[in-house]
Amino acid sequence: MSSFAFHLDAVDSSTSGRAGRLQTPHGVLETPAFMPVGTLGTVKGLLPAQLKQSGAQMVLANTYHLALRPGEKIVAEHGGLHRFMDWDGPILTDSGGFQVFSLADLRKLDDDRIVFRSHIDGNLLELTPERAIQIQEDLGADCIMCLDECPPAGETPEKIRKAVDRTTRWAERCLAAQTRKDQALFGIVQGGVHPELRRRSAEGLLALNFPGYAVGGLSVGEPPASMYATLDCTVPILPAAKPRYLMGVGRPEDILEAVCRGIDMFDCVMPTRNGRNAMAFTSAGPVRLRNAAHQRDLTPLDPECPCIACTRYTRSYLRHLFVAKEMLGPILLSLHNITYYQTLVRQLRAAVIEGRLGEFRVNLLARWAGAP
Amino acid sequence: MSSFAFHLDAVDSSTSGRAGRLQTPHGVLETPAFMPVGTLGTVKGLLPAQLKQSGAQMVLANTYHLALRPGEKIVAEHGGLHRFMDWDGPILTDSGGFQVFSLADLRKLDDDRIVFRSHIDGNLLELTPERAIQIQEDLGADCIMCLDECPPAGETPEKIRKAVDRTTRWAERCLAAQTRKDQALFGIVQGGVHPELRRRSAEGLLALNFPGYAVGGLSVGEPPASMYATLDCTVPILPAAKPRYLMGVGRPEDILEAVCRGIDMFDCVMPTRNGRNAMAFTSAGPVRLRNAAHQRDLTPLDPECPCIACTRYTRSYLRHLFVAKEMLGPILLSLHNITYYQTLVRQLRAAVIEGRLGEFRVNLLARWAGAP
Repeated sequence: MSSFAFHLDAVDSSTSGRAGRLQTPHGVLETPAFMPVGTLGTVKGLLPAQLKQSGAQMVLANTYHLALRPGEKIVAEHGGLHRFMDWDGPILTDSGGFQVFSLADLRKLDDDRIVFRSHIDGNLLELTPERAIQIQEDLGADCIMCLDECPPAGETPEKIRKAVDRTTRWAERCLAAQTRKDQALFGIVQGGVHPELRRRSAEGLLALNFPGYAVGGLSVGEPPASMYATLDCTVPILPAAKPRYLMGVGRPEDILEAVCRGIDMFDCVMPTRNGRNAMAFTSAGPVRLRNAAHQRDLTPLDPECPCIACTRYTRSYLRHLFVAKEMLGPILLSLHNITYYQTLVRQLRAAVIEGRLGEFRVNLLARWAGAP
Repeated sequence: MSSFAFHLDAVDSSTSGRAGRLQTPHGVLETPAFMPVGTLGTVKGLLPAQLKQSGAQMVLANTYHLALRPGEKIVAEHGGLHRFMDWDGPILTDSGGFQVFSLADLRKLDDDRIVFRSHIDGNLLELTPERAIQIQEDLGADCIMCLDECPPAGETPEKIRKAVDRTTRWAERCLAAQTRKDQALFGIVQGGVHPELRRRSAEGLLALNFPGYAVGGLSVGEPPASMYATLDCTVPILPAAKPRYLMGVGRPEDILEAVCRGIDMFDCVMPTRNGRNAMAFTSAGPVRLRNAAHQRDLTPLDPECPCIACTRYTRSYLRHLFVAKEMLGPILLSLHNITYYQTLVRQLRAAVIEGRLGEFRVNLLARWAGAP
């Protein structure tokens, strides 16, 4: 696993923020890092060269979606996901579990397996820890995830405890099933918003000595304050020398708060999904481009942003694209929002390295609070 | 008008094919040329840099669509279409007439004006020759078009004759209405598939001494052979020293045949529209990427094509994008098809310059005939 060495460049003194570098077979990931989501082997609307230009170093793809379409064997015939989607940087795949619980029609769940119906054609399928690893080995990402049970927000503590214990048993099976040594398998800490269950989950997984740890089961409907409080009591249990990944998070303020609590890696569909819906993240706060106020606005979307949408076009033109339902609108705003997220994590990394993350956070929160 | 000098580099000996260069305020257009269609100020799904990469030198935008959305005054406030859409090469706008006849709900048509309802909101609007010029002056394209009456295919000769005469009268009014000297106003020859009406139309327009001439009213439903025969009797009447533009054409074979008959410029939505629908033009003939035959096909779409879709991806991946309804499918295939068209016109230009267009045509037709 030396190809997955994680080096801490700096730890902030006034927060728990870290700046690191994760070595992978497809290059180095500088952390804190945000991974754009390429569900089906494409970050919607963007070419790999555009993603690179945004500053993205690693992308995420979804095991559940790719196993259904086109099927992991077809990806394997290409030599894996990197060549399939023409992304030569690091890739992370999830285990498929989250999508089975959120998208598919769940038919049966026990210690052995999850039986579910595909959301596409209703076919009856099953997922086991072994199958989740086999699919991810066929896909060939650099970082892969254990199959976990992700209970919905608001589930009873008793049910969450059962999910935690099952997640730990499944993690053992995933580890045992892994045959490729060129993929880093991450354990996923569950436990809802219950500190004692988070501890129980982390301790069970730490005994298995994974090369990286994810925090799952957050951003599933709980208030942001609960998420931050849960991170406060979960992250310190995780080993400092290994990368920490907060799954499916989140809004820019969530990323700021989680970095201050010691998280290194993030993924979220928000920048691309919101971009497709004409909502832009900007240094002056969110902008809804369909708003009539932008009809004759000849200023750039975000004068501080280096992306093509901001340097080559006006808000008026971008609004026109959305009003006229032109594909270029979603393309340009996805590119912009991804660039915004990459700029944010790069600034967070610089702030950690320069020992001023606490100050950076105060200033950024004040700026966001003052935004219209 | 010296900024619109048209220089003939070569005329083929065995056909009527020409290779030329049209000077415009935004650079030189090498002919034969194919203009991708950017209806609403964007070639659907493609960034200007991608268009440039395809070899495209000039794009077309639609006056009718832009006048409705966002309105020509907003484009003018940007300093014109070039800056609005970030295309620094030459642009051509049509007059809006074709869309009024084909898309809008036509309410009244007389010598003075066309009254119609917008296809977007049903608003009652009118178009006159003077208004068509005013909009196009606000948009600021390099080449602009006279308002013409484009009767549907199969109209009676008497009605087509009336349309021809009205088109000539409107051409006079367009010329009189033109105030900008940095735009080349093209006359449009109408006359359906009737040689004597084409001659009548051409002669009426030639008296007005336009800097370029378009052939309109073709590719509106008539058989290809009728189109070619109409070109055979129309193009020779047009002055050799001025550019000739065949509007809205067409399939690769139509472009080949029209170039052999002395046409210099083309536009058509086919490469982008078909690309969005998973149909690719290739050197081995058309390919429908949704076809199950491509599911595990690891070969490139067209090994002879230099575009990103062909050099970076497999047919299997491209098919997957369409099956999964991913935006990148339409993007990559639009880029590919535009590249295919640009490659075709570049090859035609080279064949003319090297005096082998006749041989090139025979070989290309044989190759297409042998395609599956």
